[in-house]
Amino acid sequence: MTDAQALDRSDPLRSFRDRFLLPEGVIYLDGNSLGPVPRETPDRIAAVVREEWGVSLIRGWTEHGWIDLARRVGDKIGRLIGADPGGTIVADSTSINIFKCLSAALAMRPARTVILSETGNFPTDLYIAEGIARSYRSGRVVRIVDDPVAALDRNVAVLMLTHVNYRTGAMHDMASVTAAAHEAGALVLWDLSHSIGAVPLSVAADDADFAVGCGYKYVNGGPGAPAFLSVSERHWPELRFPLTGWLGHADPFAFDASYRPASGVAGAVVGTPPILSLAALEVGVDLMLDAPMLLVREKSLALTGRFLAAMQARGFRSITPADPSRRGSQVAFSHPEGYAIMQALIARGVIGDFRAPDVMRFGFAPLYLRYQDVDDAVAIVDDVMRAEAWRDPAYQQKRAVT
Amino acid sequence: MTDAQALDRSDPLRSFRDRFLLPEGVIYLDGNSLGPVPRETPDRIAAVVREEWGVSLIRGWTEHGWIDLARRVGDKIGRLIGADPGGTIVADSTSINIFKCLSAALAMRPARTVILSETGNFPTDLYIAEGIARSYRSGRVVRIVDDPVAALDRNVAVLMLTHVNYRTGAMHDMASVTAAAHEAGALVLWDLSHSIGAVPLSVAADDADFAVGCGYKYVNGGPGAPAFLSVSERHWPELRFPLTGWLGHADPFAFDASYRPASGVAGAVVGTPPILSLAALEVGVDLMLDAPMLLVREKSLALTGRFLAAMQARGFRSITPADPSRRGSQVAFSHPEGYAIMQALIARGVIGDFRAPDVMRFGFAPLYLRYQDVDDAVAIVDDVMRAEAWRDPAYQQKRAVT
Repeated sequence: MTDAQALDRSDPLRSFRDRFLLPEGVIYLDGNSLGPVPRETPDRIAAVVREEWGVSLIRGWTEHGWIDLARRVGDKIGRLIGADPGGTIVADSTSINIFKCLSAALAMRPARTVILSETGNFPTDLYIAEGIARSYRSGRVVRIVDDPVAALDRNVAVLMLTHVNYRTGAMHDMASVTAAAHEAGALVLWDLSHSIGAVPLSVAADDADFAVGCGYKYVNGGPGAPAFLSVSERHWPELRFPLTGWLGHADPFAFDASYRPASGVAGAVVGTPPILSLAALEVGVDLMLDAPMLLVREKSLALTGRFLAAMQARGFRSITPADPSRRGSQVAFSHPEGYAIMQALIARGVIGDFRAPDVMRFGFAPLYLRYQDVDDAVAIVDDVMRAEAWRDPAYQQKRAVT
Repeated sequence: MTDAQALDRSDPLRSFRDRFLLPEGVIYLDGNSLGPVPRETPDRIAAVVREEWGVSLIRGWTEHGWIDLARRVGDKIGRLIGADPGGTIVADSTSINIFKCLSAALAMRPARTVILSETGNFPTDLYIAEGIARSYRSGRVVRIVDDPVAALDRNVAVLMLTHVNYRTGAMHDMASVTAAAHEAGALVLWDLSHSIGAVPLSVAADDADFAVGCGYKYVNGGPGAPAFLSVSERHWPELRFPLTGWLGHADPFAFDASYRPASGVAGAVVGTPPILSLAALEVGVDLMLDAPMLLVREKSLALTGRFLAAMQARGFRSITPADPSRRGSQVAFSHPEGYAIMQALIARGVIGDFRAPDVMRFGFAPLYLRYQDVDDAVAIVDDVMRAEAWRDPAYQQKRAVT
C-alpha cells in the first residue's frame, strides 16, 4: 500500500467523494473555478422543473417556498461563513453584490473619498469600484496599492479585498486586516469567492462589515450559480442599497407606489431570482454544511502541501505562499510555457487552468479529491514534461478562456 | 360540435399545445405571470446538468458555448421583439436592466433632470427610478403622471413606460408615444415584460431607444428566468452602463487592471450568468420563435375578446380597454370580492391571479389555450358565483402573494 493509499483509507472525509458525479479519467483540479455536480443535483432540478414548476405553476412561489428560497439558502450560506444569523442573502451575481455593498458602505462614510484595494485583486471587484467612482458626480476615487493596510488613512471609506487571491491563492488574515481598517475608521468588504467551502470562515467573529461571494466554486452550486451578500448586524439599521427593486421592498405584494426598503439584507434582493439555478445552489450548500470545515481545511492543506512540494522538487516556481496559514485551497505556478503545459495536462485528464500571462492554477477540493489523485497528477506532469508535447505549436495557438 | 370546438379544430396554432406540459384539471390563465413548462425543457436541463456541467466541468464554458449563451439567447429575443440585430442581450433581472438603461439614458441627457413615468406602472420600474433619483448627488427627479405624453417637456431626460400594463392589460402605441418623446428631445425606455411573446413587437421600427423585459411570462422560460435588455443601434457608440462587471469588459480574459467596456449591449453583461436558468429560457424562446406572431395576436384577441364579452354579460366590470388594439393578451376585472372569488376559481382549477386591492387578472396565452378552455372557465365562474363558496371567510383570510 502506498503512502497515498494509506492516507485515503484513513481520510475522515473519504465518503464525500461518492456524493459527486465525476467523469471517468479526469483528475479535477479546477473546483476553484467551477465545482462538479453533486450527485443529488440532477434529481433535485428535475423535481423543480417537472413537479414544482410543472404542476404548481404560479402557485410554486408559495407551495414550494420559492418566494423564501433566496433567504433560506442565504441563511445556510451564513452558517458556512460564520455570519450573524439573518445577515446573509442570495441574490444576483458577485459583481452586482459588490456594487450594492460598496454603495451602501460609501453612504455610511459620506465625508471620505477613497475606495482602497490591492494590486492583483480580481478584476470585477476593481471594475465595479471604478464604475462607482466614475459615475455621475460620485466624488469618489479608487486607490489600488500593493500594501493596503499600510495605505489606510482618514480618507479611506471602504477597504475592499478578496480574502483568497484568485491567481496566487494567497489568503489574508481577515481578523487583523479588518481590525486595522476599523482602527482607521474605514469599513471592510470581503470577497469570499475563493474562500467559501475551502477554508473555515467566521466573518462575524472577525468583525467584517460586508462580505460577498459566489456559489459555483467550492460550493458546487453550478455554472453561474447566484451569488451571496452578507452584512454585519451592527449596520442593518442604516443599510441602504442602491438597487431598489420590488422584491427588496418591505411589502412587495402591496404594490405600493413608493419604495420602502425591507430591513437588513432583505433590502438587497432586487428582482425575481432564477429559481432553477438557486435550487441547484441549495444542493451544493447543503452538501457543504455536512462537511466539518476543520477537517476540510486540514485535508486541503495536506493536498496542496503535497502537490506544492512535488512540483517545487521538479523545478516549478510557486507563486503561492509557502506558509500554510497564508494560503487557501489552491496553488499556482509561474512558468513561461504555462499555457502550453496546461493544455497538455488537460488533454491527459488533469484539469487545472491558466491565467495570463504565465500562471498555472490548481485547486484542491477536499470533498472529492484523494491523496492518490495528487500523486497521479504529479506523475502526469512528469509525463508531459518528458514528452514535451506541450511544445507543439498547436497548443500555443489556442487562447485560454476559462 | 360547439362553436368553441369548431374554432379549436380550425386553429392554425393548435399543434403548439402539445409542446407544453400542462397539469390535468387545470385551465391556466396565469401565463402572464409565469408560463408553463415547455415539453423540451426537462430533457434540455437534464442534459445541461449531467452532460454539459457533469462531463465537461469547467470546459463547458467553451465546449458547450456557455460563454456566448447570453448573447445567443439575446439575439433570438432580439428577433422576437424586432430589435436591431446584435442589440439585445440576456442578463440579470428586469429591475437591474432598468437600472442599467435608465442610468445610460440619463448620461446621454446630462442637462435634463426628469425621469417621467405613469401612474400605475409596475412598482419595480418606479422603485428603481426612485432609487437612482435618491442616490448620492444624482440631481434627478422622478415624475409620475396620469398622461405622460402630455407631460413631456424640455426637462424630461427619459420617458419610462411599461408597454402592456401589468394590472389592466392596457397597451401603449409604441410608435406614436416614442415619436412624441423624441419630439420633446427625450429618450424612451420600454418595459416589455407583459408584451414579449404576447403581442407583435418591432422596437427598431418603432424607434424605441431602450427596451427591457423578462422571459418567464409568455416566453415560458421558467421561474425567475434571466431578463433581457435591448438598445437601438444609434446609441451604441455613446452607451455606458453603470454596472461595470468583468464579463462586460471588452476582453474579460485579459484580466486587465482597468475597465474597458465591450461595445454596444455587450457592455451590459455584468457577472457570470446562471447557466441552468439561461438554458431553460432558451427553450422557451426557441419555441416562441416557431410561432407566427400575427397568428398569435389574432388568436389572443379572439380569446380575450370571448372571455371579456362573457364576463361583462355576467356583470363583471372590466378595467381592460374594450378596443382590441389597446390591449395585450390579458384581461382584468375590478370586483370588491375579487380576492375570494379568485381563490374559489383556483380551487376549481381555473388559475388566474389577484392584485390588491380588487383586481382579478386572467392571461390568455394562445400557444396552449383553447377556445374550449375559455368557455369552460366561464362555466366555472358561473358555478363559483352560484355556489357563493367564495363568501366563505376562509378565503378571505389568506393573502395574495403571487
